[in-house]
Amino acid sequence: MYRTHTCGELRASHAGQTVTLAGWVNRRRDHGGVAFFDLRDRAGIIQITINPDLPKEMLEQVANVRNEWVLQIEGVVQKRPEGMANPKMETGEIEVIAKTVTVLNPSKTPPFMVNTDNDLPDENMRLKYRYVDLRRERLTRNIVLRHKVIKFMRDYLDTQGFIEIETPIMFKATPEGARDYLVPSRIYPGQFYALPQSPQQLKQLLMVAGMDKYFQIARCFRDEDLRGDRQPEFTQLDLEMSYVHRDDVLALVEGLFTEMIPVVAPNKKLFSSPWPKFSYKEVLERFGTDKPDLRFGMELIDVSEIFAKSEFKVFQSALSAGGVVKCIVAPKSAEMSRKEVDALTESARGLGAKGLATLAIQAEGPKGTAAKFVTVAEVAEVKSKTGAKDGDLILFAADARAIVNKVLGGLRVVLRDKLDLADKTMMAFAWVVDFPFFAFNEETQAWESEHHPFTMPKMDDLQKFDTNPGEVYSDAYDMVCNGYETASGSIRIHRRDIQMKMFQMLGLSDEEIQTKFGHMLEAFEYGAPPHGGMAPGIDRLVMLLADEPNIREVIAFPKNQAGRDVMADAPSEVEPKQLKELHIQIRE
Amino acid sequence: MYRTHTCGELRASHAGQTVTLAGWVNRRRDHGGVAFFDLRDRAGIIQITINPDLPKEMLEQVANVRNEWVLQIEGVVQKRPEGMANPKMETGEIEVIAKTVTVLNPSKTPPFMVNTDNDLPDENMRLKYRYVDLRRERLTRNIVLRHKVIKFMRDYLDTQGFIEIETPIMFKATPEGARDYLVPSRIYPGQFYALPQSPQQLKQLLMVAGMDKYFQIARCFRDEDLRGDRQPEFTQLDLEMSYVHRDDVLALVEGLFTEMIPVVAPNKKLFSSPWPKFSYKEVLERFGTDKPDLRFGMELIDVSEIFAKSEFKVFQSALSAGGVVKCIVAPKSAEMSRKEVDALTESARGLGAKGLATLAIQAEGPKGTAAKFVTVAEVAEVKSKTGAKDGDLILFAADARAIVNKVLGGLRVVLRDKLDLADKTMMAFAWVVDFPFFAFNEETQAWESEHHPFTMPKMDDLQKFDTNPGEVYSDAYDMVCNGYETASGSIRIHRRDIQMKMFQMLGLSDEEIQTKFGHMLEAFEYGAPPHGGMAPGIDRLVMLLADEPNIREVIAFPKNQAGRDVMADAPSEVEPKQLKELHIQIRE
Repeated sequence: MYRTHTCGELRASHAGQTVTLAGWVNRRRDHGGVAFFDLRDRAGIIQITINPDLPKEMLEQVANVRNEWVLQIEGVVQKRPEGMANPKMETGEIEVIAKTVTVLNPSKTPPFMVNTDNDLPDENMRLKYRYVDLRRERLTRNIVLRHKVIKFMRDYLDTQGFIEIETPIMFKATPEGARDYLVPSRIYPGQFYALPQSPQQLKQLLMVAGMDKYFQIARCFRDEDLRGDRQPEFTQLDLEMSYVHRDDVLALVEGLFTEMIPVVAPNKKLFSSPWPKFSYKEVLERFGTDKPDLRFGMELIDVSEIFAKSEFKVFQSALSAGGVVKCIVAPKSAEMSRKEVDALTESARGLGAKGLATLAIQAEGPKGTAAKFVTVAEVAEVKSKTGAKDGDLILFAADARAIVNKVLGGLRVVLRDKLDLADKTMMAFAWVVDFPFFAFNEETQAWESEHHPFTMPKMDDLQKFDTNPGEVYSDAYDMVCNGYETASGSIRIHRRDIQMKMFQMLGLSDEEIQTKFGHMLEAFEYGAPPHGGMAPGIDRLVMLLADEPNIREVIAFPKNQAGRDVMADAPSEVEPKQLKELHIQIRE
Repeated sequence: MYRTHTCGELRASHAGQTVTLAGWVNRRRDHGGVAFFDLRDRAGIIQITINPDLPKEMLEQVANVRNEWVLQIEGVVQKRPEGMANPKMETGEIEVIAKTVTVLNPSKTPPFMVNTDNDLPDENMRLKYRYVDLRRERLTRNIVLRHKVIKFMRDYLDTQGFIEIETPIMFKATPEGARDYLVPSRIYPGQFYALPQSPQQLKQLLMVAGMDKYFQIARCFRDEDLRGDRQPEFTQLDLEMSYVHRDDVLALVEGLFTEMIPVVAPNKKLFSSPWPKFSYKEVLERFGTDKPDLRFGMELIDVSEIFAKSEFKVFQSALSAGGVVKCIVAPKSAEMSRKEVDALTESARGLGAKGLATLAIQAEGPKGTAAKFVTVAEVAEVKSKTGAKDGDLILFAADARAIVNKVLGGLRVVLRDKLDLADKTMMAFAWVVDFPFFAFNEETQAWESEHHPFTMPKMDDLQKFDTNPGEVYSDAYDMVCNGYETASGSIRIHRRDIQMKMFQMLGLSDEEIQTKFGHMLEAFEYGAPPHGGMAPGIDRLVMLLADEPNIREVIAFPKNQAGRDVMADAPSEVEPKQLKELHIQIRE
């Protein structure tokens, strides 16, 4: 037997026991002829003491041992001498006095240190040696947290009557907006499987099949352009329910997350329970984005009426063009330097603003770029409407409504980070509902699906399909948290006539509809129940719970930001024979 | 709200309650102006009674309702009248008297009946309408069973300190014997990801990363030729442990299965506990195969010594050529017809035998093809050694040992089915260990890995690598059940020098080794712990537990036997634009 205990489980109650341990040397110290090894395994770290009275050959071997060597230690657990306990270590009250030391495998000096998060090399080096990087306590903790999150989801949904069903990875191209990854078929020359962008069609077919409540921790694949925090493959909690309305789905998911957070991340708190629910319109008006961070205030406030008769040209011209004047109040920021305000103005321009007007509220009268253009009465009204106090800085945007919302919504996030306004222990979940059904693409001059083409429109809006598509709303919903979209879902179309209408609105020809979606339309003719679902993303959720800056920190073997596995070197070239078997060749 | 209860959960205790149900019409009967609908959902079936006193419009709608229509029913639960209870239905004591009937979705007449397993069309028709087929109670039960099996595995391994870790689906070509499915990269022209044949390398790297105990319900992909019961993608319980010897892994897996079977399949019994453990050599000698079905006896018995001086030419020539004479005893088969024996002989020939000798043991003296060539003494000795009784049929094979084992092993299975010898309620698990490390490929005149190239040889055999590869044994092991291999595993190589030696033995050049396995060899230099694991297949296990004849019956959306998804039509042709983006073209 390689070991009787894990390193991390030993406590003072084991004192006197002879144990066998196996693990990695986390740190070695030598002190007056005695060697101390911190031996590490997934469970924790324990101090091994190597006294000079061991056999000579063993001591000679011990002399060579360095960090990350793999050792097996037989020894006796002993309470540390008075005053030598280390309260920072869970095993800090004890040590193991070695009787035998066996080297199971030596290690070269690792490319970076495992026993600290400092001095890490650039990310590609970490990814190349991912099997070393994952040994760091922080990454190990992330991977264990991910396991716990997913385990909780599965257990919870099981008790709610859901069954997990595996759907194929090799399926048919599903036009859901992104590019498909393709898999050439060897048996059918010129034909391809596609990796699923999500199991959307399959989970709907499972509802038609009477599976009632389905979920799956599902791998999804999107061949998108590399930017931001994306991976070619990602994981979502894919779920679908029959005989439900929107609020049934929201209640299920809210229940799951509300029960889960305290269990898997006791250091996190739910910002509010029940979660707030905003319409798409309202959330844009109040937070300037459909992914609001609710952990702090600083809502967008419409002050158009106050400035209806303003002589400030910037406000006047925006209002007379049918636009709005809105503002946000940055607390205790009246003393912000010129340079800081310039930086905010630059951010505003990057978000589409022509400029930024500011009022620094101060006891001796307002300052800032708008100060000399506004009246005392206007300032008083703004203070009254916004609740701004002496010492606050008010930032105004005046333009078309959509631009104003985007600018102030963006500045709100910039100020959150700058002023450290968000409590990092909070998980501020919320629902956003009542999305528009169509979006008009100015470029192609065509209506596009705002969600995906299987989303059910509000039944009352059905008759506006032809007359006024822009006024049709959908039964889609998003779950947001701390400024991220953490899930998206909808009630689905379950009637063939509505689904046909939808495809036709999107400009698909009858032939395209048949080739791509014939099986879905046909399924709806054989007793499809009303159904809906959603799909919380796992990677981002665990990232938020682990306080990590990107999802690569919570994935065991992520691709780098250039979409490569730099450890195994993938993608890579293959044998010409393989391509020939697959009936394809490289296009030069 | 669409429903207050599921159809299947109602019992006599609900009598008097007003309930709302939603589901499919499983069967409609009309009787004296009253319509009876069996309404079905995943939970079960309940009888709905539609009395003629409902509003006229509702009755008109009801008149159209046929099987598989989706209805919402509001009604009152009522005990059935005396003598009308149906004890075959779980809800058979009650019925729901409808107050309102709402058609949620009509259904065309389905392509085959859902409420029976009889009169099913050919499998391709079932697969094309998989969303209809899955509504059959039998298939629904299989999918739920699969969920329960996997849920049990996860829960058990979690309590044993395992963590589930997701490994990439888009990875690097892994040469594990089968062809890889490839995924062309859009971003790196001419380069390809590969779908994993198993997470073998990744799980070993997780051990190097200190993850200690890993598992994953892993999707695996092999582009093999289509024959038998294969799917392009399949699911395995992939697991790996650090600091273990072979028997640690076996104990873990045996514990899991032993606890699982009674919970997930209470109608099944474990044939023996603890499970028998056979060496590869022993299992071939006794059962003629390394995948023995232990649910019945009929072991292969070596009678070479008895016939050492036989004058029966068939036996003589086999023995004098260094071969063996072995037999199996078919119980109560002495009266088998000439035609039946001929069929067995044909089977034997198909398995590689030159012929088949038989002895029908009868009170009046033996009959059969060998009867006139054997002495009374020989018959007596054979009866004594095999325990054959009057009325039994003894089947002999005489040839080289490997051929004899294969022939009798094959006949043993033929006779099992013919004579119905195997108790279908039994799950006869066993271990097969001590496999040869190398297999000599006569065709290529080269040594090949019998398991896979990461399997650890028995340490004592290491020095025979160069001198006598055929005598090297490995730390590989198989789990078998009812004649199937249900899992395969091994202790892995964790030392660079042994792994290098292994690759060199397999004839790989240094450059190939570096390109394909450089990352593994490098990982072994940075503190790789001893480790091992195994990978029980999920599909076949559930198939056995569900008493199904093939794995397609326990997969929600399987490919057909030609590797196609006939429901969505995949693989299929794609847009030329997509291929262009991927830098490939079809080879004409």
